[in-house]
Amino acid sequence: MADSPNCDLKSLSPLQLFERVTEQGEKVRALKAGKAPKEEIDAAVRMLLSLKLSYKTATGQDYQAGLPPRDLALINNGMAKEEEEDFVDPWTVQTSNAKGVDYDKLIVRFGSSKIDTDLINRIERAIGQKPHRFLRRGIFFSHRDMDQILDAYENKKSFYLYTGRGPSSQAMHVGHLIPFIFTKWLQEVFDVPLVIQLTDDEKYLWKDLTTEKAYEYARENAKDIIACGFDVNKTFIFSDLDYLGTSSGFYRNIVKVQKHVTFNQVKGIFGFTDSDCIAGKISFPAIQAAPSFSSSFPQIFNGKENIQCLIPCAIDQDPYFRMTRDVAPRIGQPKPALLHSVFFPALQGAQTKMSASDPNSSIFLTDTPKQIKTKINKHAFSGGRDTIEEHRKYGGNCDVDVSFMYLTFFLEDDDRLEQLKQAYTSGELLTGELKKVLIETLQPLIAAHQERRKQVTDEVVKQFMTPRKLAFEF
Amino acid sequence: MADSPNCDLKSLSPLQLFERVTEQGEKVRALKAGKAPKEEIDAAVRMLLSLKLSYKTATGQDYQAGLPPRDLALINNGMAKEEEEDFVDPWTVQTSNAKGVDYDKLIVRFGSSKIDTDLINRIERAIGQKPHRFLRRGIFFSHRDMDQILDAYENKKSFYLYTGRGPSSQAMHVGHLIPFIFTKWLQEVFDVPLVIQLTDDEKYLWKDLTTEKAYEYARENAKDIIACGFDVNKTFIFSDLDYLGTSSGFYRNIVKVQKHVTFNQVKGIFGFTDSDCIAGKISFPAIQAAPSFSSSFPQIFNGKENIQCLIPCAIDQDPYFRMTRDVAPRIGQPKPALLHSVFFPALQGAQTKMSASDPNSSIFLTDTPKQIKTKINKHAFSGGRDTIEEHRKYGGNCDVDVSFMYLTFFLEDDDRLEQLKQAYTSGELLTGELKKVLIETLQPLIAAHQERRKQVTDEVVKQFMTPRKLAFEF
Repeated sequence: MADSPNCDLKSLSPLQLFERVTEQGEKVRALKAGKAPKEEIDAAVRMLLSLKLSYKTATGQDYQAGLPPRDLALINNGMAKEEEEDFVDPWTVQTSNAKGVDYDKLIVRFGSSKIDTDLINRIERAIGQKPHRFLRRGIFFSHRDMDQILDAYENKKSFYLYTGRGPSSQAMHVGHLIPFIFTKWLQEVFDVPLVIQLTDDEKYLWKDLTTEKAYEYARENAKDIIACGFDVNKTFIFSDLDYLGTSSGFYRNIVKVQKHVTFNQVKGIFGFTDSDCIAGKISFPAIQAAPSFSSSFPQIFNGKENIQCLIPCAIDQDPYFRMTRDVAPRIGQPKPALLHSVFFPALQGAQTKMSASDPNSSIFLTDTPKQIKTKINKHAFSGGRDTIEEHRKYGGNCDVDVSFMYLTFFLEDDDRLEQLKQAYTSGELLTGELKKVLIETLQPLIAAHQERRKQVTDEVVKQFMTPRKLAFEF
Repeated sequence: MADSPNCDLKSLSPLQLFERVTEQGEKVRALKAGKAPKEEIDAAVRMLLSLKLSYKTATGQDYQAGLPPRDLALINNGMAKEEEEDFVDPWTVQTSNAKGVDYDKLIVRFGSSKIDTDLINRIERAIGQKPHRFLRRGIFFSHRDMDQILDAYENKKSFYLYTGRGPSSQAMHVGHLIPFIFTKWLQEVFDVPLVIQLTDDEKYLWKDLTTEKAYEYARENAKDIIACGFDVNKTFIFSDLDYLGTSSGFYRNIVKVQKHVTFNQVKGIFGFTDSDCIAGKISFPAIQAAPSFSSSFPQIFNGKENIQCLIPCAIDQDPYFRMTRDVAPRIGQPKPALLHSVFFPALQGAQTKMSASDPNSSIFLTDTPKQIKTKINKHAFSGGRDTIEEHRKYGGNCDVDVSFMYLTFFLEDDDRLEQLKQAYTSGELLTGELKKVLIETLQPLIAAHQERRKQVTDEVVKQFMTPRKLAFEF
């Protein structure tokens, strides 16, 4: 980062300018806190003012801490969905494009970084094995500060993993497994502690549920998560309704985040309005932020405050962690790093993500082999042609074919996947045949999951959900 | 409450109408929840609509749940302080009248009930002893549902006491003791459990304090509270920063309250605005509400949810509990009852309350006999005349004399107080002589407090602050 603000500011995007102002503001605060010489503080303040001016010139808006230019635009547009753009927030994913959301645009809009070949190669070197298919195939496609995590790992400094789930019902579908499958792999290759948050309090606040029901869903969902194969000695799963009442470290971090976020910021980031939103919703983002700080888990990290956190999650969760990263330096904590995944498409097509509340859009983890077969044959959107003759002649379109998309998530063999793609695109492989491959891939995976889930007794859940030391020294 | 809405609605005040609409709304909800016959629900809904219409006719405003007419007026006036009225909220008490706030007007504005002679006599009959001087002298002057508490007590049903303090500094002044002196008396005469909330999280959110400092103040303040003579077997004192992390019952009640309060309600009740208020401030009222429900203390009440709560507090805390009482029936909990005290006047006069942040306005619990004497002689606002001659001729004014006001708080002997009043009013007693009586009353009280506080070791504080069963069966 150049020290003179004038050399290259005109070439920066509004978001880059926003980040320059934010960083400079942090620098000024740090200088003041460290009682730096007056000249040095004055120079830093002058630079901050100059950066703010550039920001205003570029955006026509005053800089507002915590409100990146995109969020500002959203507020000014009354949070309208923009026809020409995809709509993505923690509650809604919608696009008019059958190929799904334009993730490259999302990276620009959110100001994150693409997971490129260089980064994937660096991960491969660091762990000494082939990267997970989700990395190889761009399913985890975006990140924040993953290089810092690798720096730490290469320097034998520890970090930890944090992911979560909102337990809105007992029924989980295959799409819900994506972050957990990937997190399990990360835990294995990096050998680090993992915390998994079940936001039963959020579901109580947003849905028509009692606290008892939300907590019951949390424990039932924990069984499906545990069945992904997590190591009980390295993993702590917690329900908010429970854990808030067992850790003063957790509540202290919540209140620290809450002190450093204004209502306007929360409104801007999450699109809340004054009247639809209840007091609990405004304070909830701090509860999803708090597990990003190791001091929320004194029993695991021995009270240490500076262990960095890596969060694998779907890209729609990014607003929570943009807010968290904005607050972190102001409460003296490291910013969490992130790995973002694409959405898991609905059976009907990639215009929206798979949703448990629409049974026809979802393959559930409880579905029988027959149900799986029927749903795929009946509902999976096909990129094939209307007649066999046309299909043989012109070929199918893998970019919009949901069965092919699902295979990119679940078929491990890269060569086989490539063969299927070529055969389908050339018209050699028919839609029914492609669907058959998917059915035969998913049926044993889900049957095996169900088998493992049966082994997860209430006693096992209790072990995972008991606050305790894990198999790591801090 | 008459069943027909039309007979007497025109004679009701906007606030009474507001309460009728609120109660009718609760009745409709209860009927629906209880799956009552359709005719019964329809009749209740028709009555609700009719009541809402009367409310709109009387106020020119649509009924809004949780926003009593006064609060509505405040919002519509942009929360301006009204010149002709006293200003009272949880953070500010201000009046232009040297006699202090007009408490009768406050009762009308807040919609509470006056503690009249009938109620005081009923308390005397119930407990079989003389009521506390704070009741005899109108220092606790207003209540909500105290009759219900006495009904319960007379029917051998238990209740519990809840009061609290915001630990904004180490220094407590004599005014801070008023609720605790009274609560100790209530605990003795009714023999019931008591919970005392130290809102260190609130102080962290509102003040420039670290969480560590706020928690330290909480424990230091606990020593002064314990020195009032509370029984460790019947009293649980807790810091929010601590207790939230040790009781899932507490957090569950917080989140329940948060779900049932909108941001608009919190804004209306507490006068927050979008930009000055941080996410934590919006969610804090639920944290002060939660101890009003016995399920927040499963260790004390054995998980019982229906034990009624009685809250002695200064009247400026009422907005928190108006909100709590509005939410209670919607989360299936009894409404807490309240006893409201007047403010403890500043040394300089009753236009504002004693404030620890202005040392000249306050007599601290750590002051030496000499400091007490100097402060009273130098700063206590006098209702006496400018010269001895005039004073002898016209007499002093007890209504504005701060020394006399303090004596009504601290001098136990009713006859002596009446003698002093007559002598001062007649001009027989000079200002210096009245101040001397106050000094000689306060010095031994504060010295005794300091003596008792010395006995309160860290170990004793820990006992009071450990979540545990108390000496009551539930």
